[in-house]
Amino acid sequence: MLSVYSDEFFMKQALNEATKASEEGEVPVGAVIVVQNTIISRTHNLTERLNDVTAHAEIMAITSAASHMGSKYLPQCTIYVTLEPCPMCAAALHWAQIGRLVYGAEDEKNGYMRFGSHMLHPKTQVAFGVQETECREIMQQFFQRLR
Amino acid sequence: MLSVYSDEFFMKQALNEATKASEEGEVPVGAVIVVQNTIISRTHNLTERLNDVTAHAEIMAITSAASHMGSKYLPQCTIYVTLEPCPMCAAALHWAQIGRLVYGAEDEKNGYMRFGSHMLHPKTQVAFGVQETECREIMQQFFQRLR
Repeated sequence: MLSVYSDEFFMKQALNEATKASEEGEVPVGAVIVVQNTIISRTHNLTERLNDVTAHAEIMAITSAASHMGSKYLPQCTIYVTLEPCPMCAAALHWAQIGRLVYGAEDEKNGYMRFGSHMLHPKTQVAFGVQETECREIMQQFFQRLR
Repeated sequence: MLSVYSDEFFMKQALNEATKASEEGEVPVGAVIVVQNTIISRTHNLTERLNDVTAHAEIMAITSAASHMGSKYLPQCTIYVTLEPCPMCAAALHWAQIGRLVYGAEDEKNGYMRFGSHMLHPKTQVAFGVQETECREIMQQFFQRLR
């Protein structure tokens, strides 16, 4: 059973978004942004539907959360994302000064860590490996179906 | 006099966008995307008006150009941008597989080259220093007015 308000609980919400993406034929990455235990943004990858490479879950989550908060800076927010952010999204999280980044599965091929942790803002706290198996498997299953 | 369809001509169009940004109180960065000598996207930084750190000129130019082209990949396009792209925008240009990047002034503090040229797609051609003085001065004048 998931504890309410735990990292696992919020990552499960991000996984629900990733499942929606998968059902829509999108690469299954989901994200939620949380402030004071309240989800203020739920998004998933929409690059196919919007025909736009910038429509990653994190980019849309930042835009949505900034609108909700009335501030383009998000130091009091945590983003939960099922996959290690790519460099575009990591740099966007840097600009947003996100307080905390929690991701599920690593992405050795396209993740930001190829360029190093200093892609993020120095004040951003990072955790990863939360619900890692589920986050990795939804990606693997999606690409196996494509082949 | 500017030759029509030269890099200088198109960078001047990007500078016109940067001037609009400056007049609106936005950090003055402008961009145009060109395909076959036709401008298909004209944008400038809108992070203040949209209250969104992701609203850089290049991100909006990619979204707009993809909509115009009916393709999220832009290998036949050239983007002219007045300032060296930041890592977020460079990585977005990588995802878009932009054919050619031309930028005016370097950005030692926030530019993507801190992380290396491999932030871009390996097939992207790069040129810089076009209208470099004007591109640098519009930034310097903007920040001098702020102080």
